[in-house]
Amino acid sequence: MITVSTSPASYHHGNLRDALLAAGLEALEGAEGKAPSLRELAREVGVSATAVYRHFPDKQALDKALAQEGLALLGSEQAKAAKKAGGGAAGFAETGRTYVRFALAHPALFRLMFTQGHPVGDRDAPDQARELLTAHTQALTSDPERAETLALQAWSIAHGIAMLMLDGRISADDALIDRLLDTDNVFP
Amino acid sequence: MITVSTSPASYHHGNLRDALLAAGLEALEGAEGKAPSLRELAREVGVSATAVYRHFPDKQALDKALAQEGLALLGSEQAKAAKKAGGGAAGFAETGRTYVRFALAHPALFRLMFTQGHPVGDRDAPDQARELLTAHTQALTSDPERAETLALQAWSIAHGIAMLMLDGRISADDALIDRLLDTDNVFP
Repeated sequence: MITVSTSPASYHHGNLRDALLAAGLEALEGAEGKAPSLRELAREVGVSATAVYRHFPDKQALDKALAQEGLALLGSEQAKAAKKAGGGAAGFAETGRTYVRFALAHPALFRLMFTQGHPVGDRDAPDQARELLTAHTQALTSDPERAETLALQAWSIAHGIAMLMLDGRISADDALIDRLLDTDNVFP
Repeated sequence: MITVSTSPASYHHGNLRDALLAAGLEALEGAEGKAPSLRELAREVGVSATAVYRHFPDKQALDKALAQEGLALLGSEQAKAAKKAGGGAAGFAETGRTYVRFALAHPALFRLMFTQGHPVGDRDAPDQARELLTAHTQALTSDPERAETLALQAWSIAHGIAMLMLDGRISADDALIDRLLDTDNVFP
């Protein structure tokens, strides 16, 4: 989890990276809902552009790091929700609901996560959300291909609900999220 | 279906609108994958900007019309696919597969359809895709709320697969589309 130093002059190498990411995430939550330029970020945090480039050589590197922060945050919220629901099928359903609610709570970050996140096959980034999903579906069946199918179906339905709600095509309604992700209906 | 006159000088009012939309759709399919500005569109079709403004007062009006063309095209492809599969559950599954394949074949148009399409509750635009979906799910159950839930779930899973494939998060693989939209697995 990122913590921000209150004293810009005191940044150590790792602290500055965290502070830059925290400022980037905050900008994504703002009215404009977009990641700042590297220069804006430098100004915001009170360091030189050169100091920023040391951590993020270009905007794409920053966007990718912000997307990875988002994935980590989502995974952590899903893990918490699943645990709170007592795991099992109820926990599995909670991970889906948390996914959609996360998208609605952080629209710009969520969109960034899926346009800038690590592409197919790039497994260098930790992805707790994906690991949780795999664990859940592997508990449902001993057939690995069937488990993979279930995982991708569950991801797709949550992602589809999230996108259609973000784009105003389905009402962003909390009760509707529950109804659409009721596992008794989707995966009996 | 839009047909383009080969003689720019001969546009009638309706013809010009169709020609503008056809040029806009063509630009979306191009390398840049974005709708042209109204001025670019005028140049492309060989008419004055004023003539374009008569049909589309601003870029948003053009984008909305292009999105509606896309929805109509998708609906027509889905209807054809469902009919070819003999209707019923097989036809229903085909509408989902057609949805995802349409997104992969027309990525820029598909994205435009869902950021610029008619918002929730705006029912002035024809939406054959949605009507097909409703008809299919109403055939599955006599409970209207359950039919609505099934329709939104089916839309969400197809939309989620389409978006995750477009964003490179799931392999855009034809056999995988079939596997994920096998109705025996998703809605037994």
